Amino acid sequence: MERADQGLAFMLQYENVAWYEDGTVRILDRRVYPREVRFVTCHTHGEVAQAITDMVTQSAGPFTAAAMGMALAAYECRDLGEAAQLTYLKAAAETISTARPTTVGRMRLITGGCLLAAEKALQAGENVAQAIVDHTVRANNLRYSKVERMAEYLVDLFPQNGKILTQCFAETIVGMMLKVARQRGKMLKLYCAETRPYFQGARLTATVCHEMGFDTTVITDNMPAFVMEREGIDVFTSAADAICLDGHVANKVGTFQIAIAANYMGIPFYVSGAPDVGHKSREDIHIEMRDPDFTLQAMGVRTAVDGVKGYYPAFDITPPALVTGIVTDQGVFAPADLHHYFDNGALGEFEMVI
Amino acid sequence: MERADQGLAFMLQYENVAWYEDGTVRILDRRVYPREVRFVTCHTHGEVAQAITDMVTQSAGPFTAAAMGMALAAYECRDLGEAAQLTYLKAAAETISTARPTTVGRMRLITGGCLLAAEKALQAGENVAQAIVDHTVRANNLRYSKVERMAEYLVDLFPQNGKILTQCFAETIVGMMLKVARQRGKMLKLYCAETRPYFQGARLTATVCHEMGFDTTVITDNMPAFVMEREGIDVFTSAADAICLDGHVANKVGTFQIAIAANYMGIPFYVSGAPDVGHKSREDIHIEMRDPDFTLQAMGVRTAVDGVKGYYPAFDITPPALVTGIVTDQGVFAPADLHHYFDNGALGEFEMVI
Repeated sequence: MERADQGLAFMLQYENVAWYEDGTVRILDRRVYPREVRFVTCHTHGEVAQAITDMVTQSAGPFTAAAMGMALAAYECRDLGEAAQLTYLKAAAETISTARPTTVGRMRLITGGCLLAAEKALQAGENVAQAIVDHTVRANNLRYSKVERMAEYLVDLFPQNGKILTQCFAETIVGMMLKVARQRGKMLKLYCAETRPYFQGARLTATVCHEMGFDTTVITDNMPAFVMEREGIDVFTSAADAICLDGHVANKVGTFQIAIAANYMGIPFYVSGAPDVGHKSREDIHIEMRDPDFTLQAMGVRTAVDGVKGYYPAFDITPPALVTGIVTDQGVFAPADLHHYFDNGALGEFEMVI
Repeated sequence: MERADQGLAFMLQYENVAWYEDGTVRILDRRVYPREVRFVTCHTHGEVAQAITDMVTQSAGPFTAAAMGMALAAYECRDLGEAAQLTYLKAAAETISTARPTTVGRMRLITGGCLLAAEKALQAGENVAQAIVDHTVRANNLRYSKVERMAEYLVDLFPQNGKILTQCFAETIVGMMLKVARQRGKMLKLYCAETRPYFQGARLTATVCHEMGFDTTVITDNMPAFVMEREGIDVFTSAADAICLDGHVANKVGTFQIAIAANYMGIPFYVSGAPDVGHKSREDIHIEMRDPDFTLQAMGVRTAVDGVKGYYPAFDITPPALVTGIVTDQGVFAPADLHHYFDNGALGEFEMVI
């Protein structure tokens, strides 16, 4: 148990490991974690934006990093007049929000939330940077409680000692899922696809699963179909970078392919998250194409000869027909019924991160 | 053109780079190629068997290595009496044939062919080792001519400047395919899945494609479905480790998953090879499970924390329903019609390697 608690503490500690303090923002460098625990220190909000672009932090990490970048921007302009501070913060919000093309919409809402907190603090004559930090901590705590409810609905869907296939780094969701599974005595067996080219599955998801005391196996990204058939996978599950109102799911590249295989074998695919009011359909999703050369190396070692091209879409889109259910804090919805998520006044995915 | 010819020469030179000479067998180490051109030198047939087990050579490479191991065994026992030499060679054949579990059947036919050549040489009072080498060169040349016919049928199936997705290292077949494509002016665009954990696709297939002058892109193993949809792949094609008489195809792990995605998107999947009389159905295929820890590293760098398990099936099996056609030296067959391959007296896959 102690180890499992350590695992959760560890996960919660590191998930959003980006924080503002005294004119700097420190961000856990997930590009080298867990092999190495190293932090990138930013002295300006521009450096925070660059760190987000450079994928120093990933998954939900950039959202907290963005907010901390806003706190840093508030520190940078603290000696200006009130109006000039707001102008400065709005420009900073734009710089930070556009750091990665796929998440601009959500980032704008996060930095927008920070701008509102800043305005209130300026009116009340409070420390603006601290007000942004406090706002972000509150928003994250709200999110954690929602993720916990989501995890309860998700674990309901797992067989007692089921075999669960995961994709990429589902951060808080995978940790909460395993916490709930332990509480209910469900000793799941986890299979984590390694998730090239960054190996988030091997480096991050598998670490959380193992540290929380579960039987954890890493497979390469060409093995899911084999493992489904040979090992009898019960459920494929992932989080999402965006869930469209029509049930399309944007997530780490590879999700689409595993979902096709799961569908072929009659294995359910459950996606955890909430519908994203900024994304009505797949047309609203911009797939970020990253540095193609990054696919020509693995853990820093070159794999292909010079002259061969790389190709690197960060995400892919899974259509609703391949998604068995969207697991939200309001319950589990078939993709076609996702609009019912809002029936009880829930605000959608954006609410969870701002 | 010069570069393309160099590419083919290169490929033909290296495909079966295992040769016997003066009491040693040298084998190109494909585990480090093309980053490094290094050879493993074997002084006994037992060392050859070990090199095959250790995957020093892969794909069709082990079949030539096995024959060269038999030549070395003949050298080892050259001073014994005729009957004792044959006994020694039979024991060597068994050691070499069982070096890798998936290929025992085919290996026994190759070493069996070498034993026949040895018997003839002993009766004729000829150098046995040389007789085995000569026999193997003849068998390989026969195979090359068959692969060339196969490549002609395969290229017929490609659109003029089609986008072709490949899986793993199809050695002679991919080289012949591109040679024929050039002759016909089909400037194909190749997408090579990198094929974890050994990266044969990134290291070997992509090298052949690029050296032969074709536009070559390496993708990670979680990208095929995305690339099929986004880039408009025309054909998925692979070779096979074994093609069962009922149309099941054993090939490098990942093939099954890509075939499921291709089927989902209506993209044809053509497998090059010939039916294998030793494999009636999938029940006759033994999937080799290799050292699981090998999936926990990439290019020699550890990816997962200690305590996480690995998992490493070398192959998977694609059912006939996902195979559009089997491209053989006798023409293209739907999986259900594969028995017609034998109508004109062809002997099946084994004939091609002994």
